Amino acid sequence: MTLLVVGSVAYDDVTTQSGRRMSAPGGSAFYFSISSSYFTNTSLIGVVGTDYSDDDRSILLKSGVNIDGLVTEKGKTFRWKGVYDDTNFNSRETIDTQLNVLTKFNPKLNQIHKKSDFVFLANIDPKLQKNVLSQLDVRPKLIALDTMDFWIDDYKEELEAVIENVDVLFMDENEIKSFTQTNNVITAAKTVRKLGPKIIVVKKGGNGVIMFNQGDIFTVPAFPIENVVDPTGAGDCFAGGFMGYVAGCNDLSPTTFRNAIITASVMGSFAVEGFSTEKFYGITNNDIDDRFRGLSSITSFETLQNNETLPRRTSS
Amino acid sequence: MTLLVVGSVAYDDVTTQSGRRMSAPGGSAFYFSISSSYFTNTSLIGVVGTDYSDDDRSILLKSGVNIDGLVTEKGKTFRWKGVYDDTNFNSRETIDTQLNVLTKFNPKLNQIHKKSDFVFLANIDPKLQKNVLSQLDVRPKLIALDTMDFWIDDYKEELEAVIENVDVLFMDENEIKSFTQTNNVITAAKTVRKLGPKIIVVKKGGNGVIMFNQGDIFTVPAFPIENVVDPTGAGDCFAGGFMGYVAGCNDLSPTTFRNAIITASVMGSFAVEGFSTEKFYGITNNDIDDRFRGLSSITSFETLQNNETLPRRTSS
Repeated sequence: MTLLVVGSVAYDDVTTQSGRRMSAPGGSAFYFSISSSYFTNTSLIGVVGTDYSDDDRSILLKSGVNIDGLVTEKGKTFRWKGVYDDTNFNSRETIDTQLNVLTKFNPKLNQIHKKSDFVFLANIDPKLQKNVLSQLDVRPKLIALDTMDFWIDDYKEELEAVIENVDVLFMDENEIKSFTQTNNVITAAKTVRKLGPKIIVVKKGGNGVIMFNQGDIFTVPAFPIENVVDPTGAGDCFAGGFMGYVAGCNDLSPTTFRNAIITASVMGSFAVEGFSTEKFYGITNNDIDDRFRGLSSITSFETLQNNETLPRRTSS
Repeated sequence: MTLLVVGSVAYDDVTTQSGRRMSAPGGSAFYFSISSSYFTNTSLIGVVGTDYSDDDRSILLKSGVNIDGLVTEKGKTFRWKGVYDDTNFNSRETIDTQLNVLTKFNPKLNQIHKKSDFVFLANIDPKLQKNVLSQLDVRPKLIALDTMDFWIDDYKEELEAVIENVDVLFMDENEIKSFTQTNNVITAAKTVRKLGPKIIVVKKGGNGVIMFNQGDIFTVPAFPIENVVDPTGAGDCFAGGFMGYVAGCNDLSPTTFRNAIITASVMGSFAVEGFSTEKFYGITNNDIDDRFRGLSSITSFETLQNNETLPRRTSS
């Protein structure tokens, strides 16, 4: 099965309580494909500037990512600079954003891309996301989309126009509440489902995730991490784990989507343990499998059988 | 098995986006015992004023709570008045606190109380909590304690002096971070365990719970509730479900504590669906069992077997 991701490739300048990385490779499509390529063959479509280094290209190649669709444009690579709050990783300040060559990004799908079985529209301009869908030769088995507050706040119509064509929508808790103008996640998911997507995945960072898959609700806590180094890209690695698992299984059953959420959580938990995708350079497929088992062992309990009850008070 | 709770009994004036209740029965021991008495025989020690109504007393009696230890003092019952944020239930403002007869509270255990198998020290002055422990004839099988930011911030020494004598400590996420001066829950739990408690239960409200039971970590999301009416007392009902389950099973194995966390989560989820303990008047033991099964069905997934792996990429 082939998985196609379209999104940003970037250089990030990130400061957290653990330190700082300048010109660290990042971007939504970069993070996603490093993660998804553990599980399935992944092709990336994106744009970089002439400053994009061979070392960073080879991170993708070594991970097995097909970068035939990574175009180099004259100019500099998209750059983002941010600082995370020392006490609350959910809070970060963007110091600087330089779109650079991203303003020229005009995704072009080749003949192989156009027949992709699974497509992930990573966080970029919704107009580009829609443009990608229009180039596909056949309807993929599954199309998923991620976005961010910037598009939700100021490009809602354009975003809705692409959301109605996707099967899976990823949003974080604050984003979906703001998108639907409600303070309850269940209500928000119902509202979004009316737009089209069958599956809504609400990411809550360190507080886990809740998935609404038509009638099936599934929720799991985050894998507890004691040393969170840098949360940048964790949501993209999460989505990469999800789509990589589904494409790797080539199955769309509720059970597969539940396991995809676990795989996603595992990949997100590794992502935060290092700057950029550094943590992934030191782990193997076995480490990923082990953490999948670990998340099972810290969350599992025996349900009550049909004829079984909780203890009851004896006095009246 | 007998479960003893010592804590506050109050009248609350609560405003949320769902409305307002004036003079609604509340208090940590009130909430706790309404919840725990579904599962085990519960005795309450507390103090009320002469304004405490027979109707509110009979809520406890009808729930099967033994109130031989509920003393009436001359004066008014402890009163709390608060308003919850419309968009964020984790944020509330205390408008007024009138301690009233709570200032005269001097818990006296009778001969039966002194032989309790399970003891819960609900949120009150740590000096009173310690005083209760000193009156026990035999070491109970399990002593648990809950507290709040007020005691953590201004009575830390007194609080530590009682924490070192308990087996289970309940704190919410912000409380344990503030108590231990760290921003990571795992680090915080390690710090607190050094003080004495074997089990640390970190409550995260709508984001679930994580329990550190010596080597055993267990974490579960909250049961998703679409219509949160009033979160007041949810933490006490949570603790009541936990202790009620453990006492009802009369067992201290890791499996029992995991199921206790699920029972606790179920009781907390009912608590927020109504003002005061109103939601409980309409539910049966079967409803509680059903939600236990429900929480299992929305969180369960198949782990990888030992010889099984996640899907792998085929290209290099």
